[in-house]
This record gives sequence, C-alpha cells and structure tokens, in this order.
Amino acid sequence: MCVKAILESYETLGFVNKIDEHHFPSRESINQILIFLKELLFPGFFNEKISTVKDIPDITEQRVSFIIDRLVEEVYKCLAWEKKETPYDKDSINEQCYKIVYALIQEVPLLRSKLKKDAISISSGDPAANNITEVVLAYPGFQAILVYRIAHFLYNHKIPLIPRLMSEIVHGDTGIDIHPGAKIGESFCIDHGTGVVIGETTVIGDNVKLYQGVTLGAFSVPKNNSNIKRHPTIKDGVTIYAGSTILGGETIIGANSVIGGNVWLTDSIEKNTKVYLSDHYRRVEKKVIKVNND
Amino acid sequence: MCVKAILESYETLGFVNKIDEHHFPSRESINQILIFLKELLFPGFFNEKISTVKDIPDITEQRVSFIIDRLVEEVYKCLAWEKKETPYDKDSINEQCYKIVYALIQEVPLLRSKLKKDAISISSGDPAANNITEVVLAYPGFQAILVYRIAHFLYNHKIPLIPRLMSEIVHGDTGIDIHPGAKIGESFCIDHGTGVVIGETTVIGDNVKLYQGVTLGAFSVPKNNSNIKRHPTIKDGVTIYAGSTILGGETIIGANSVIGGNVWLTDSIEKNTKVYLSDHYRRVEKKVIKVNND
Amino acid sequence: MCVKAILESYETLGFVNKIDEHHFPSRESINQILIFLKELLFPGFFNEKISTVKDIPDITEQRVSFIIDRLVEEVYKCLAWEKKETPYDKDSINEQCYKIVYALIQEVPLLRSKLKKDAISISSGDPAANNITEVVLAYPGFQAILVYRIAHFLYNHKIPLIPRLMSEIVHGDTGIDIHPGAKIGESFCIDHGTGVVIGETTVIGDNVKLYQGVTLGAFSVPKNNSNIKRHPTIKDGVTIYAGSTILGGETIIGANSVIGGNVWLTDSIEKNTKVYLSDHYRRVEKKVIKVNND
Repeated sequence: MCVKAILESYETLGFVNKIDEHHFPSRESINQILIFLKELLFPGFFNEKISTVKDIPDITEQRVSFIIDRLVEEVYKCLAWEKKETPYDKDSINEQCYKIVYALIQEVPLLRSKLKKDAISISSGDPAANNITEVVLAYPGFQAILVYRIAHFLYNHKIPLIPRLMSEIVHGDTGIDIHPGAKIGESFCIDHGTGVVIGETTVIGDNVKLYQGVTLGAFSVPKNNSNIKRHPTIKDGVTIYAGSTILGGETIIGANSVIGGNVWLTDSIEKNTKVYLSDHYRRVEKKVIKVNND
Repeated sequence: MCVKAILESYETLGFVNKIDEHHFPSRESINQILIFLKELLFPGFFNEKISTVKDIPDITEQRVSFIIDRLVEEVYKCLAWEKKETPYDKDSINEQCYKIVYALIQEVPLLRSKLKKDAISISSGDPAANNITEVVLAYPGFQAILVYRIAHFLYNHKIPLIPRLMSEIVHGDTGIDIHPGAKIGESFCIDHGTGVVIGETTVIGDNVKLYQGVTLGAFSVPKNNSNIKRHPTIKDGVTIYAGSTILGGETIIGANSVIGGNVWLTDSIEKNTKVYLSDHYRRVEKKVIKVNND
Repeated sequence: MCVKAILESYETLGFVNKIDEHHFPSRESINQILIFLKELLFPGFFNEKISTVKDIPDITEQRVSFIIDRLVEEVYKCLAWEKKETPYDKDSINEQCYKIVYALIQEVPLLRSKLKKDAISISSGDPAANNITEVVLAYPGFQAILVYRIAHFLYNHKIPLIPRLMSEIVHGDTGIDIHPGAKIGESFCIDHGTGVVIGETTVIGDNVKLYQGVTLGAFSVPKNNSNIKRHPTIKDGVTIYAGSTILGGETIIGANSVIGGNVWLTDSIEKNTKVYLSDHYRRVEKKVIKVNND
C-alpha cells in the first residue's frame, strides 16, 4: 500500500528520471566522467593505480575514448532534454555533441598549462606549500579551479546541467563554490577555500588571491534579473582575506587592492587601496572571574 | 607486541563496537540507507543507473523493502543500545521499530511534496538556477534540506544516533549543518550553503532564505542547559546574508526582516527591519607602492 | 591526434606520476590507509561490517599488518621522491620507513587516550551531544582532530606529502583544515567546524574551543618567510565564536579569553578578556513596504 502511494506521487508530482523518456544525467554519471577527466589531466595523481611509463600511451588512449563515449552520451541527454517541448533532429544534436566533446579533449594541453600557472600561483603564495606537486595532489583550491576550468568550457558551449553538476560535485569535495559562468583570469589562487562562493557573473582578473569564506555574490533579487551582471568585478592583483562578503554587479575592487577579513562591501574600492575593519568597532571587557566555582 | 597493547587499550578505554554485545549502527551502514532513501524520493537523480518506465514499480518495491529491512535493523540497534543499562523486551522494541520505519515510508509522498516546495523556493530565489530539476540534481542547499526532513521525522520519533548520523553525513557532503531537532517551516531556501549551522532548538518560519556561512547558534553553555531553548527564532520571510552569526534562545528576528552579511547579533530585531554593518567601521588606506621591487 | 597532443603535453609540462620513475603516493592510496587507521583506532564505528568479540584479535592483527605494509610502501615513495636529485641508499630509507610506521602503530593506545579526552571535551561543551559515542561516530570536529593527531605524528617524523594529504582528505570530509604542523594541546574542541582553518605554525593550549569558520591564519607573505612563526598562539581555556579571523605570528590570545563571532583580530588580547563587535557599528533601517506589489 505504501508503494502504491509512492508510485502515485511519482505520477502526480513528477521528479522521476526515466531512461526511456526525456531524461538527464544522474549526478553519479557526471562524477564518473569527472574522475576520468582529472586522471587524464594529471595521470597518477588521484586514482589508486599508477601506470608505468610504457603503459601511459595506451592508458591515455583508453581514457580519451571512455570520456568521449560517456560524455557524448550525457551531453546528448542534456541537449535533447532541453529541447523536450519542441521537435528536434537527433542526428544534428548528436553531431553537435561530438563537436563539443572533441573540442574539450583538444583543450586538454591548454588546460594543463593554465592549471600549471594556477598551481604555481598557489604554491608561491603559500609558505606551507612544499612544492607544486603537493598543490596538485592535495590542495582543495587547486581542485576547485581545475573543475571550474572544465565546467567553464562546457558552459561556454551552452551545455545545460552538466557544468553546474560538475561545479557542485567539487563544491561538495572542497567547500568551494565557483559558478561555471564566472570569468576568471590567469594564475588564480584560492587558499584553504572552504566557504568561498563565486557567482555566475563575477569577473576576476589575473593574479587574484582569495582566502576561505570569501563571497563574491549577488543581492537577493527577483529571478527575471538573470540576464544582468549581478556579481562583482575583481581587478588584477587583488587579495581578499577570510570571510569577506562582496556583493553587487556594479561593485569593482580596483587593481592591487587588499580587502581585510570579515568585511561587508557593497560599493567599489579604488585601486591600490587597503580596506580593514577598524579597531573602534570592538567592545573589550574583563571577564568576571568567579572566586568560587561551585 | 604492538597488537597486544592495542587490544589492551580496547579493553581499558572501550570505544569498540561489537556485533554480539550492545552495539550501534556504523556510520557507513546509515550512509547506505540514506542513498536508498534519496533514490526512493527522486528516482534516477543520484545513482548512476536510471530505470525504464516499465521497471519503476518493481524497483520501487525493492527499494522500499530494502529500506524497511535495513532501517528496522539499525533502529533496533539504537533503541536496544539506549536501554543497555536496563532490562527491555526485545519483541516490543522490534514492534516499535517496524511502526516507525513504516511511518517513514508512508511519509514519502508528503516529504516529496514538501521538498518540491523547497526546490521551487530555491529556484525562484536564484537567477542562476535554470529550473527545478537542476536544483534537485545539483544544489547542496536542497540536499541538506532533503536529509533534514528525513532526520527530523526520525528525531521526532525519538530514535537516538541515526538522525544525527544522517545530518552529519549530509553536513560532510554539503558543508551545511542542520541539527535534526530544528523546527523549519515550508519553502525553505539555503543558497550555496557552505558553513551554515542551524542548532537543535532553532525555530524557522516559512519562506526564509539563508546564505552560506550563516550561524543560528547557541552561546557556549554548560551541558545541563540542554533542555532549554538555546538557539534563535527566525520569523516568516526573513533573508540573512552570508556569514552572519545570530546567537541565543531569546533572539527573535521579526518577519520579513533582512540581515546583511558578517553581522554579529545576540539581541532581537523587529519585523520589517534591515540590519547592516555601517560604513564608518572601515579603515581605508592607500597602499604604499614600492618604487623599487627588489 | 588529440591523444598525441596530450602525450606531448605530458612530456613538456610534466605532472605525470609513473610507477617506474620517481613517484609519490596518489591521493586515493593515502585515503585507503586512513580508512584502516580510523577503524584500528575505533573498531566498528565507521565501516559497514562490525566484528564479533571473538574476531577482534585476528582482525586487529590483519589491520595492523595491512597498515604496516601499505604505509611503509607509501612512506618509502615519499622519502625516495624527496631525495630524487641526490643519490640515496635504498636499504637505509627502507629501514627508516619501518621505524616510523612501527612507531605510529605503537602510538595507537596513546592516540586513543588523547582522542578520548578530545571527545569528552566536545561532548561536555555541547548540550546537543547525547554521549561520547555519538561524538566519535558522527561529529566532524572529532574526525578532524583524529586525523590531525595521526598527521601531526608523521609530520614530526619529517615525512613529506602524506601528512598534508591526510589533512586535506579530512578537510574534504569535514570542511575543517588543520595543518599537520600546528601544535595543539589536550582536550581540544571544534564545534560544527565547517570553515575552520588552523595554520602550520599555530600553537594552541589545552581546553580550547573553536566554533565553525574560525581562521587562525597568516598574512599573505612571500614564500621565503616559511621558517618563521606566521600563525597565532591561543592560550589555555580560550573560546572563539563563529567566523572570527585571527592572523599573525605574534598575535597571542591570553588564557581563558572569549572572542565573539565575526571579529577581525591582528593584535594580541590579554588573558581573561572578552572581545565582541560592539552594537554601534550597525545600521538599522525600516524596510520600505510596498503598498502595491505589482
């Protein structure tokens, strides 16, 4: 009887993904592809099994063909699902899928060199980082930027669902939430990173460094504002310390400025400026020490 | 010799969970059940394999019977473990377990309609959300609310350990920490969400929106204060921006008020009020630009 | 053709970990060892299968020998990889590996008693914690301290890469980022914990309590400052509320002081002192209520 009521709820409320109707990728299917993409970018860094030198060409070929097969399938689902209300030509969508996925694979060498710059930037800004290998292996800021650069590529090719799924998977892994639509320059550094949020229309220059808990966000707005710039612009060389919240599409942080921690900013800051919480906001009291602890 | 010392430590210090003595669920056993519950609520959204329309009734039946078998077993462990110091009747505990687990399964259609309202609320407050499907698939705020609504049901039925294990599993996945005891109204929205903490005696109305890093917490108090209200009350329609900390059982945020980011609040705020960090707390300085970078 | 360009990028840019050249542990290999170490410390708490009383001695012996075999192998990789530019004696490195790993296994009973103190401290400071078992099973603060105490042991024995990998794995699980180099006293409590960052040269006394989002961090400095103390000192009995940022190697928070939430601190605070954001930093406005919602 329970089961009957549940099946009825599937009929009336929906929210059931069925392979033989218009359907979309499950979260886990995108996760599997992401694992292969990370291993293609940095062989031997993440998975338990490390290859020999001799095996790398074959394994790379297998990885590439696995990614193409699986990602074409999932991209197809997304594009067909998006057009589900209107007639569409299966062959032309299929062709489009192959084009996009091949383009991503061709981007791999460029992605690797961009990511090397990010890793160098993270390593050189962190006295606790012993070397770049450690950054690629272990640092969550690097993981989040890695997945962002893949997801941003797919976002630019107007794939629905998959870019956001990728960014939310790495958000779950790292606590760093970079919307795939954000525009981020070279040599980007996120240190520690838990709680960082970078919204869809954020624009970030080169050599920017963010600490944990920094929000580059939007004001709570009605949904029809989705086509205007809602998130800030951060110019080259800016550093923003832990826990600062910077909101608004017209807010610009000028080049080489430094924003201290725990700051709430909804207006622009000129270049070469430091902004901190001043001391006079503090209330300092002596604790009442109980003589008798009973 | 090492092993002997370790076994001795098991004897003297305890902290060993043994299947043939009074024992309790392991973390992984609850995780497995949660995966099945999520798939029962939203078939095809999370696991890699998506069913056909024809298979859904059988698969649903299998899922329900798996969940009943496994959850009854784990709930039994918890209830017997809780009573380990006193004699108890195995049959009556067993009967109680079945009642609670059946009640949870019967709640599934209602949970689905509550969660649909939450998803609509998240989607309509977020210009970056393309549709409700994306919210259910990918958004951590939705995942956390989903698990909270299950855990809260079990908490209300006075099951020990399992509700907290569930909430900590999704806390690990999303960075959002909602105590299963909190009372939360309809159409609840958490955006981004990393770092959100909602304490055990928090009361939240309808149509409330929280951003990442918001704490609805308690003052550090002695443990014997566990039966009084220690966490705030948030009335209908309130929005709280990133990183604000609101503490105390008598703190009430009035309906439709807006709390800006990075605010520290330990007193009540009237309805229809905006509270922000003012500008005069800031120290703004020009950076000293070194002419010679050597 | 794609594959060829990718293989060329492996040659020119590097970042490929090959089993038959100088190589290092993958992230997943360290994760597997950590799972066994946690199960050795608290049998039956984390993995799905719980042992019988009778099986525990054999299972413990198997766990110990698995950990020794696997960890010696990974420690060897790290030490050889670190010396890759200079000639080294394989046998002497191998001997060193066994010594360190045996020392870790011998530390297990002491680690268990230290961790019991941490769990008691977490439980007694939290009215929502029903008992110590729940803390060990479910609390992320406890998980992070558990892994920190293992990683700190290996860090003190100058193992490269592995301690940081361990701390980043649990950072991913819990949102709590404790550098393995930090020095932390007894009965340490982290409540909720998402977003906590504790830097490499931090020194923390006994009975300290941190809430979520607390940063004990460093100023952004050039990399050559890596040998000086860059992170704060927190004396015995201090409590720090959610989201406070405390930076700098000369910053000392005196014993038994209380730091409120959302505070930005870059100077020292005397003992027995309370520091809060004062009220006069706030801007409070009535919301403009639209009479007509069109």
